[in-house]
Formats: sequence, structure tokens, C-alpha cells
Amino acid sequence: MYRSKTCGELRLTDVNSEVTLAGWVSKIRKMGGMTFIDLRDRYGITQLSFNQEVNNNLCEQANKLGREWVIQVKGIVKERSSKNSNIPTGDIEIIATELTVLNASKTPPFTIETETDGGDELRMKYRYLDLRRSVVRQNLELRHKMTFETRRYLDERNFLEVETPVLIGSTPEGARDFIVPSRMNQGEFYALPQSPQLFKQLLMVSGFDRYFQIVKCFRDEDLRADRQPEFTQIDCEMSFVNQEDVLNMFEGLTKHLFKNIKNIELPDFPRISYADAMKLYGSDKPDIRFGMTFTEIKDLTTGQGFGVFDDAEYVAAICAEGCASYTRKQVDELTDFVKRPQVGAKGLIYVRYNEDGTVKSSVDKFYSEEILKTWIERCDAKPGDLLLVLAGETEKTQKQLNELRLEMGNRLGLRDKNDYKCLWVVDFPLLEKDEELGRFFAKHHPFTSPKPEDIPLLDSDPGAVRANAYDMVINGVEIGGGSIRIHDSQLQQKMFSVLGFSEEQAESQFGFLMNAFKYGAPPHGGIAFGLDRFVSIFAGLDSIRDTIAFPKNTAGRDVMIDAPSKVALEQLDELGIMLKPIESK
Amino acid sequence: MYRSKTCGELRLTDVNSEVTLAGWVSKIRKMGGMTFIDLRDRYGITQLSFNQEVNNNLCEQANKLGREWVIQVKGIVKERSSKNSNIPTGDIEIIATELTVLNASKTPPFTIETETDGGDELRMKYRYLDLRRSVVRQNLELRHKMTFETRRYLDERNFLEVETPVLIGSTPEGARDFIVPSRMNQGEFYALPQSPQLFKQLLMVSGFDRYFQIVKCFRDEDLRADRQPEFTQIDCEMSFVNQEDVLNMFEGLTKHLFKNIKNIELPDFPRISYADAMKLYGSDKPDIRFGMTFTEIKDLTTGQGFGVFDDAEYVAAICAEGCASYTRKQVDELTDFVKRPQVGAKGLIYVRYNEDGTVKSSVDKFYSEEILKTWIERCDAKPGDLLLVLAGETEKTQKQLNELRLEMGNRLGLRDKNDYKCLWVVDFPLLEKDEELGRFFAKHHPFTSPKPEDIPLLDSDPGAVRANAYDMVINGVEIGGGSIRIHDSQLQQKMFSVLGFSEEQAESQFGFLMNAFKYGAPPHGGIAFGLDRFVSIFAGLDSIRDTIAFPKNTAGRDVMIDAPSKVALEQLDELGIMLKPIESK
Repeated sequence: MYRSKTCGELRLTDVNSEVTLAGWVSKIRKMGGMTFIDLRDRYGITQLSFNQEVNNNLCEQANKLGREWVIQVKGIVKERSSKNSNIPTGDIEIIATELTVLNASKTPPFTIETETDGGDELRMKYRYLDLRRSVVRQNLELRHKMTFETRRYLDERNFLEVETPVLIGSTPEGARDFIVPSRMNQGEFYALPQSPQLFKQLLMVSGFDRYFQIVKCFRDEDLRADRQPEFTQIDCEMSFVNQEDVLNMFEGLTKHLFKNIKNIELPDFPRISYADAMKLYGSDKPDIRFGMTFTEIKDLTTGQGFGVFDDAEYVAAICAEGCASYTRKQVDELTDFVKRPQVGAKGLIYVRYNEDGTVKSSVDKFYSEEILKTWIERCDAKPGDLLLVLAGETEKTQKQLNELRLEMGNRLGLRDKNDYKCLWVVDFPLLEKDEELGRFFAKHHPFTSPKPEDIPLLDSDPGAVRANAYDMVINGVEIGGGSIRIHDSQLQQKMFSVLGFSEEQAESQFGFLMNAFKYGAPPHGGIAFGLDRFVSIFAGLDSIRDTIAFPKNTAGRDVMIDAPSKVALEQLDELGIMLKPIESK
Repeated sequence: MYRSKTCGELRLTDVNSEVTLAGWVSKIRKMGGMTFIDLRDRYGITQLSFNQEVNNNLCEQANKLGREWVIQVKGIVKERSSKNSNIPTGDIEIIATELTVLNASKTPPFTIETETDGGDELRMKYRYLDLRRSVVRQNLELRHKMTFETRRYLDERNFLEVETPVLIGSTPEGARDFIVPSRMNQGEFYALPQSPQLFKQLLMVSGFDRYFQIVKCFRDEDLRADRQPEFTQIDCEMSFVNQEDVLNMFEGLTKHLFKNIKNIELPDFPRISYADAMKLYGSDKPDIRFGMTFTEIKDLTTGQGFGVFDDAEYVAAICAEGCASYTRKQVDELTDFVKRPQVGAKGLIYVRYNEDGTVKSSVDKFYSEEILKTWIERCDAKPGDLLLVLAGETEKTQKQLNELRLEMGNRLGLRDKNDYKCLWVVDFPLLEKDEELGRFFAKHHPFTSPKPEDIPLLDSDPGAVRANAYDMVINGVEIGGGSIRIHDSQLQQKMFSVLGFSEEQAESQFGFLMNAFKYGAPPHGGIAFGLDRFVSIFAGLDSIRDTIAFPKNTAGRDVMIDAPSKVALEQLDELGIMLKPIESK
């Protein structure tokens, strides 16, 4: 036995007991004839004390230790004279009687502290040292708790966790697949799953009734800051359910996690249609921690000679409470913000509704105070508020106004990370038109069921068809999404034809699913949560990277193990593949 | 709401309540003016009853249903006149009042029954229908329970489940890797993990203390009947532990699973050294549900002119209790058995120790009764027993005698699937010599720690070095294995040099691990269980295939989705690879 206790559990009640601890040397301090060591393990930090006068040899040994050495210490628990109320073990220390070095350590390339001096690249190269930092480790402890509680909740409700295969076939819809050459079937390739979508639907056909899986998925996409080639989903599916059943079940899961992990009782989640979300927030994942919803004022702006508004398809305002007193500089900053290429507006109009009831705007030349007051009234602004107005093509302008709204939320401190506001966005459009290609794509995926009342529109106006699809959004982040599926093979075929699949294409790509549906598919639907994102929300992180033990960088590389890497020619030979010569690329 | 109850939950106490059920039509029987339907879902079967005289229309509708149609039924629960004690719902039936067809079904290609008329290939092609059979589904329910209980046990003991990456680098040790071409780093490849070995050791360096993961692993090996290219491990690692700590923790896990899932209280597991296992059973995974251990009798056989024994390195017997009365035919069958190419013995010698005390053997020509009695005595045989003797080169003969012992166990009914006998095999050799290549390979893996007392032998007699390695064996099947790891980078380097790795090879392949070990690696060790195998033992299955929802066949193909498959040329172009032209293969 290397230890009788961990470094996190000793308290005043343990005083005078003999213990053995093991861990890492976190800090060494020498004071007079004393040496104090902070010994660290996953569970906490315990102070070790060595007294030169009592045991000179042992103290000398302790003085020779370095940061991050692994040691084993035997000693007696004593009450500390100067207590440290910052740590749970701060009332006691160990008077060391024996010291064994289990392993020495080179000096780490950065400090193992909450605030480290290591930059991102260094941290990733030495990720195994970075993971010693409690701020990083705590995210992974949280991740463990969230998956454990998720499994507990679902198990109690008769969900079965079923593993679906990782080596599957390539499908053309969605993102790019990672592929795996087959040695036993040369010239053929497996693909890694982008999601277990087809398999979970097959499990419903199999009568599994309630399925879930916490599962790795893969997408060979160009990586943005916050995207990983491999990511984890909480993937779920249920039979004999309608949308209401699914929403209730997984609203319940989310409440369960908040309650059991953060001790937060969430109220019932509001629901908002996709159309309303776009109208009020310009986003299908609105952050409802604060109001400042959009007010359309196009009709109040026309015919006064202001071309920008007269020519605009859409004019809308948000009302920033208490911001009438913004300085010229502050307003200029906002104008610069909306003009940034990422936002893309041409300009920003403001209307100050001063505390004294007077009105001042950047378009006073065109609009009388009387007209401006009609805007103020419709926006329900109070004296002291500031209206911010954008105009242009509807969809683009909504997106720009969404960015501005979020920016104002940040400036006004309305986006507290510890304030959690969840909602469901429902009634998504079934299809999305790619104007360039002139064809429709499935907004969710090709198995999503249209709303029964909208089915006739599939022929006449496909873009107007609403789906039985839903997203769960927390604090402006899409955490999960799903849909009720098509269980009727004729409707499925109809859907494929609207998506422009020839019968052969549909057959070759999804034939086995359509075939399965001919043998008695139950009504079913499901949802998938992005676990990495879910954990990052719980942890208050801006990025998913530190919710993952060994993440890849934006070039898809694991810089710690240096993967991907070259492989031996014989390995490629066995697989029947070769690298393309450079000149022919 | 599609249903108010499942098909498995109605009892006599529900009589007279109105319910709605949904499920699959399992059977239709017509008797007089009545139609009875067995409605099936995951939870059970409930009888629906339609009376022509009461509601002719509804009964007509019911008569038109086919097997495996999906229906919804409203009705009243009534006590059955003729009860079916084989099913929990057998006391009641539903007097149907409404019937809705949710989905029709083609006639399935095989019957959805415990004993199906579908052959293996058909079952796999229509796996989604095969999974409707309760015998198959129950294996996956069991798998769910085992993983859930495993997680519960480990969570309660402070283990953290940490996901390690699936896209890693290729390593040359062990089996062949599946590789994944990288698009963003053309000419380079990821590999799929054969196990998370390196990552779990890095997590120990990170101070994670107790790690586990239920995780998919991949090996591109030629597939035998019972091997899958992707398989699942319960992968575990602990810090500050010795072998005893690991064995206790995971003996505890196994007991927990048997107790909570099968309600079996297992006694403490016996431990046997690898050397003794080979000596007594000729196997490193002995089936100890029965005795019949080996007795060496070489010294009692020499010098009597029987060349086969005189020339043999090794002569040993097993004693088959009560088999002295075996007929000539039965003994011939055993001789044929050991001569099969899979066993490979040249012949079988027997000694009958008859009930009347007389002795009769196949080598009476060479050995007097007196000598044969010395064999009998050493084997502790009783009158009525049969000695079966094999001779030859030690290791080969031990393996042959092991096969014969297991065969006798089968014949004598000593291998009951519901009798569970677990043990630990310990003190494995650290190294295994490949005589052809003239070099040593790691028996477990290159990070396995030698027994401290055997370290000096690394130079003088590497083959004699024992490892701190252990296997858990249940009923003759290796369920899990692990070791205490080397945590000292110098000893690790020594190990690599014994394995014939140049410094550069070791550096390029394991450099990052050896580097990590320089920053304070704690003593650590772990174990990995083969989940598929573990479930198959619990389920009493001979193969792992039906513990997996969507297994591949022995050619590595998923015949249901027809994977692997060809991919578009553009896909290969993007990855910078091409198929090797046939002629240059």
C-alpha cells in the first residue's frame, strides 16, 4: 500500500493519527529551521512539515526535493498553528517521519498552477502536465459527472445504451467523412460515423423502444477555433412518441443535470418557433438571458426622404435600456462593431430618448421628433433608453442586429455565465434552398418528418414546409437538436425526390434503411446533444477544448503525440493504396 | 401519446381499466367468431381479443392485419378465461375497442421467434429484424446492465471516465492498425487505437489517479470466427498501487457484476502462477470448474523399452473419474480427437483401472501391472478411473493434454455454463522469444513491469524474468488482463533495449511517453476487460457476435449496410491517395 489517505481528506478529527500519503511536490518553502512542502494529488493538497532540529537528516532530504517530484511520506497529523482557510485540509499538517522518493522530475516547462505561465501551444504539447492543473482537471471531472448522471437518468427511464459500429459505410449527405481503407476488401473503404443516425433508427425498427449512446462522432471539416474532428454526442431515440414526449423527456434530462450537478432548479423551458426566433432575435439560438428583442419599424420610416430606410426591405430596432447617455465615442464604437466584416452592416442609426424626454437621433435631418416618438413608442422605450436601428435585406439585417444585440448584452453585463436560461426552438423549416445550386437540402437531415399539415406544401412550396424538428438552446448556444422521423417509406421516398435524389441514388445510399422501413417501422423520434458543448456551458468555458482530455489543434493535429504521421510503405501496400504523386495533384 | 401502457406491464390488478397499447403483431389466431392477436413490444406480449359478434367491423380490420404490422389499440383490460402462465401478462387480455394501423409490414424473411427459421447470413442481412427476437435483444439488455453496473461500481470508487482520442498515431508493436488518411495533412495518416494504453498511462502521469473508460478498440487482423475488427474494452488504470490493490479492486468489480446482475455471490478468486497453470492445466486460462489436473509420470515410464515415452521430453496423465468402463469405441474417439490437426498429438495411451482392481492399458506389452500401478498411485486414481496419457515435447504436449482435458470435461458434463469459476493467473513471463526472428517480444506489452527481484535477469536470462502481470479467467476464458507498469524511464529504456529497439526507434515510437515519464510518473498499473467476451460469458453464449448489435462477418463486412464500399474518386483525390493499380500489386 502506497498510501493510507489521499491529500484531500485529512481534517482536525484525524489529529495524532499516523498516515502515509503519496503525491506530487507542489511547493517547497523554507522558514528558519523548518521546511514546508505542499503535497498534491487529485483530491487536494496537504502540508508536510520537516523540522531541522527534530530530524536533520529527513529535513535535508526534503530540501533536496524539486517541484513535481513524486514522493511518499509517513507522518503524524497535527493541528496547524497558522491555518489556511482556502483549502479543506488547511487546519492540519503532517509532521513527517519518513520520506521516500518514488520518482524524480525534470523542471516542468510551465508552472502547474491555476494561472500558469504556459502558452497554449506549450500546454498542448505537454498536455499531460497541463492536465495536472486543477482548473483543467475539474472540467474532466465535471464531464465524468455529466455522463454518469445522464446515464443514470436514462437508465431509470428504460433507455438502453447500445453501441453502434464505428467502421461503417460512407454517405454523401452532410459533412465530409473520414474514410478507412479496408485490407481484407481492397479498393473499398469504411467511413467513420458523423452520427449513429441510421443505426438508431434501425434500432427503433428492431423494437428497442428507447435507445441512447454517448458516442464519438467524426467530421472531416475544416476546423474552426472551436470544432474538433472527433466529438462526442449524447445520442437518443424513442419509439411511439410525438414531439411533446421527446421534449418532455430531454427537458427532464437537462433539469436533472442542472439539479444534480449544479444544484440549480430550472423552470420549465419556454418554446419559441423558428419564425419567431428569427423575428425577435435574428437567431435560431437566441440568448434569452436578456430581452432587447427586435422591433420592426419599416412602416414608420418610409416616405421621409431617407433613402437608406426607403430602399430597405427591413428596418428594425433594439432598445438599449439606460444607454441614452452613451458618449459619441461609445456610439462610434458600436458603429465600428456593426461595420466589422464579421457583422457586415453598412452603418448604424441611433435615437437617444433622453431622460428629460427630448429626442436626439443620427437621422434628425429626415425625421421629425414626432415621427421618432412613434418609433420610441413602438419599441416601448423609456426616457434614458437608446434605440439602435439597422436596415437592409431582411435575413442579413436580422443576423447583424443579432450580433449587435449580443454585443450590447455583453456591454451591459446581461450575459452572466452563472445565469442559465434554456429554451426550445421548434417548427424549423424542413428544407433549405441552396440558391447557387438551385436545389433544396434537408435542414436537419433527410429523415426528418414534415408537420403533417404541411405535407401538401411539399409539392407546391417546399421552402414553406415546417418540420417536427427542435433545438435545445442554453444561453445562446445550441446544445442539442432532433426531430420526429419519417416512419413511412412512401413519405421518405417523396422526401428524397424533393431533395433531388434519383431513385438509384436514394436506393444505393439509403436503400437498406428504406427497406428496413417496409418491415414495420414504429413512429419514432430523437435528439442528439453535443456533449463537449454541454460540458463547456456547465464549466463556464468559452471553448470546448478544455472539456476534452487530448484535443487536436485547428490543423487537426495532436501535437503531443505528433499525429497524424507518415506510415511505412508496406502498410499502404497491404491496403492496396498509394500516395498520389505530387505532380499529379 | 401513442400508448398508456407497454405490452409487458398489465396484470390482474389492471382489470377493467381502459388502456392504449402500441406494438407489433406477433401472432394472429382465429377461433370461432373470435380473433386473438399477440401484440409485442420490448417489454412483453399482451393478448388482444376481437369478438365478431360484438364488433364485426373491428374484427374484420383485425383479420386483415399481417405479422409484424405496427398497430395501436385501445381497449379494456379483462381477466382471461384460459390463462397463459408462460408470460407475466398471461392472466389478462385486452378487449379491443379501437384499432389503428401505424405501419404495415412485408412478410419478414424469417420468423421472429426464439427458434427462428433464419440462417446466419439472412439474420445478419436483416439484423434489424433479428434484433426483434427476444433472445438476441436480451443479450444487449444484459450488455447495457453490465456497463451500467461497471460504471456505478467504478464511480463509487472515485474512478473518472475519461475519453481518449480515436484518431491517434500508428504504433508498430502489437497487431496491425487501421489507418485513416488525413486530408489536412496530406501524406500522413491517423491510426485507430488498438487500446488506449499510452493515454491511460499519460493520465496517470497527469495525476488523474483512477481512470476508466468503456471504449471501442480496433485491430486489423485476419478474422477468426470469434474476432471482430472493432471490439470494446473496459479499460482501467490506477496510481499508487501494487498488484494486490489492482487484483482486489477488479475482483470486487467482477463480484459486483455477478451479485447485481445474476444474484450470484462469488467466493474469493484463487490465484495460480503462470508456471503452475501450465504444469497443471497446460493452459494460461485454465477452466477450473473441474479437476482432472495433469500428473507428470515421465520418471515412472523410462527404461521399459517403450520408445515413445523413452524419447519423450514429457509424459503426463489425466485421470478421468469413472471412465474405466469406456468402450473400445469411446477410447477410439478420444484417440481420434487428440490426432485431429487442431490438437496434433501422435497417439493416446490409456490405462483402465477397473472396478475390480485389475489394470488394463494400451501399453501392457511394455509395462507390468506393478509399474502401471505406480502411475495410478501418483495420479491418485480410484478403481473405475481411466488414465489418459500423452507424451512428447513439453509445451506442445501440455497444450494437447489441455485440449483432451477440456474434451473430457465436456463429455462428463463438468462444464456447466451456469457454474461460474473465476481465478487470477499471475506471474506471467515478461518476455516471449520468437525463435524464428531470434528476438524477444513483450508478452503483455512493453510497459509491463518486471518483478523487482527478477530485474537482474534482464541481462543474464531475459526469458526467465517474471512480470507483474495478471489475467482474470472465468470458465476457461480470459476475460481481462493487465499489469503494473514501469514508471521509471531508465527501466523503460532498458526494456526497449531488451526488445531490440534502437534508441531512435524507441524515441520515435514512444518518445513522448518516455518524455512524460521524466516529469514525475507515479507508480501505476491497470487492467482491461474484453467487454464482448465478458457479456458472452454472462449470457452463456459461445460466440461474442450476439453480444454486439451490428457485428461484422469474418470478412470484415457489415452485410446489412454493405460496408466497406467503394468511394468516389474525388474523395481519394482530396486525401491525396489513390488505389494501387492491379498490375503492380
